[in-house]
Amino acid sequence: MTSGLPSRIIALAGGVGGAKLAQGIALAADPAALTVIVNTADDFDLYGLRICPDLDTVMYTLGGIADPVQGWGVAGDTTRTLEALAAYGEDPWFKLGDRDFATHILRTERLRAGRPLSDVMAALCGSLGIASRILPMTDDPVATIVRTPDGDLEFQEYFVGRRQQDEVTGFRFAGIREAVPAPGVLDSISDAEVIVLCPSNPFVSVGPILDVAGIREALGRAVAPIVAVSPIVGGTAIKGPAGKMLASLGHEVSALGVARLYAGLVDGFVIDRQDADLVPAIESLGMRTLVTEAIMGGPEDRARLAAETVSFALPTIAAP
Amino acid sequence: MTSGLPSRIIALAGGVGGAKLAQGIALAADPAALTVIVNTADDFDLYGLRICPDLDTVMYTLGGIADPVQGWGVAGDTTRTLEALAAYGEDPWFKLGDRDFATHILRTERLRAGRPLSDVMAALCGSLGIASRILPMTDDPVATIVRTPDGDLEFQEYFVGRRQQDEVTGFRFAGIREAVPAPGVLDSISDAEVIVLCPSNPFVSVGPILDVAGIREALGRAVAPIVAVSPIVGGTAIKGPAGKMLASLGHEVSALGVARLYAGLVDGFVIDRQDADLVPAIESLGMRTLVTEAIMGGPEDRARLAAETVSFALPTIAAP
Repeated sequence: MTSGLPSRIIALAGGVGGAKLAQGIALAADPAALTVIVNTADDFDLYGLRICPDLDTVMYTLGGIADPVQGWGVAGDTTRTLEALAAYGEDPWFKLGDRDFATHILRTERLRAGRPLSDVMAALCGSLGIASRILPMTDDPVATIVRTPDGDLEFQEYFVGRRQQDEVTGFRFAGIREAVPAPGVLDSISDAEVIVLCPSNPFVSVGPILDVAGIREALGRAVAPIVAVSPIVGGTAIKGPAGKMLASLGHEVSALGVARLYAGLVDGFVIDRQDADLVPAIESLGMRTLVTEAIMGGPEDRARLAAETVSFALPTIAAP
Repeated sequence: MTSGLPSRIIALAGGVGGAKLAQGIALAADPAALTVIVNTADDFDLYGLRICPDLDTVMYTLGGIADPVQGWGVAGDTTRTLEALAAYGEDPWFKLGDRDFATHILRTERLRAGRPLSDVMAALCGSLGIASRILPMTDDPVATIVRTPDGDLEFQEYFVGRRQQDEVTGFRFAGIREAVPAPGVLDSISDAEVIVLCPSNPFVSVGPILDVAGIREALGRAVAPIVAVSPIVGGTAIKGPAGKMLASLGHEVSALGVARLYAGLVDGFVIDRQDADLVPAIESLGMRTLVTEAIMGGPEDRARLAAETVSFALPTIAAP
């Protein structure tokens, strides 16, 4: 390890934003130093296949094959299978590429054979040459239900099908009470040197991870410092519906609004330069702050933010 | 109906050769006049998906989207999904195209939901605009086991995996005793005006169809004339292992060898000009003969052979 960064780093992540910072950590530190604990509450079944959007986004990103523009799916992927499904009368509302389908087909086959999701993902990640560990938060099925004035919506129906247009009045994570952390999740938290909450949606990405029995408690007991990177910059979400959710649930739509959600859990909070005026209010919540460029571009930029974030968490180590 | 051909024609078919003649019948007569009863004994599971090679070959051929060179699969199909499966460490021994995968994915989803195969195929064929009826011989699982000196082989292992190199000492159709004909199969046979045994393998394509409980008896009771087209021309199979199977099972490798297998079942037998010398021996089995060009090229050629075959079966109607 010549990076100067620790050898046991945990990232809690949802989809695109979380995957970018996780990739940054893998690039800045040793890839094998990184364990990503990934939200699975937006997993769902489509065409009889098990789709795990966040796990796949993290896997494709760490595997270096993610689409660099949209952030999810496989770079350069074609959609022949989906077009053929449409020709059979199916609604192709959720975009799945041809290479992507291979992931869903194999995962579904192996899950049906009784293998746990964590085991299935480890094999897929190994085939892609990923040295980091990607763990689902749980091997048990959990499903995010979005409460709206029009009634409950399954997450992907809200997120993709209805393009996040509905006002959100709350969430429910079906199955969360029966879910137990996947093997390695609690141990990796207690063994960690640094724990990073990625710039993912605090309600539907980081939230479900924290709600799996024992994970929030493990974070509370962890010796490692815990830092979060704000998914809100300049009063809007970098990506996705976090801003709208904050607003409709009565929170301030700002990095401060997110910091309040993480108060008592994190030791430090990373915000963008344009939010520097929020430092006093955030620090009054009992957390240190790092002000930097918090919007990530390509891999170099991700590695820069990751190195800054980890060094900020552990101020006694030198920034690389 | 202006073709002069009957409005209720049944074809019993396996894969490529059967699909070609079935397409010829659909082209020569009204497509809606044709019901194809298709072998399902070489169906199998791969990557957790249900693959029905003969049904799909017939469907793609009648749908006008079959690969014109290899005869199976979809014309111009790509193999991105299969390549991605290989990247995950799977053996891509059985070629499946990306559009093809859509068929297997939807079929598997619907079968798992409890829909019978015949119902699933009817919906898929309807989406492809196929006016002919394509019926699986049965909705029940049947699996061809090929007996060889090295032991029993699953059919696709023998056929694709080991490239038909093994000596064949016999067959077994697992599940055939419990299988019942799919809805419509027996009725269509009793209502038929003409019944055609396509130039498919008599052992592993037509054979299993005949072995499903009640089908051979229904053919015996049928008022329609039954004619077969020889899959052997000039002492070799047009396609596939029929010739090798005839030889290793002690039959003559010729149209006569096939005619002997169908003696007592068919009223007429269609052979190629180069086998004209076999006419007396074949007719001595109690069947009429038609000598023509029995090797099919493109759609026009298929329609020509189909029209000749149906007209030969019903000598009182004029050839078109």
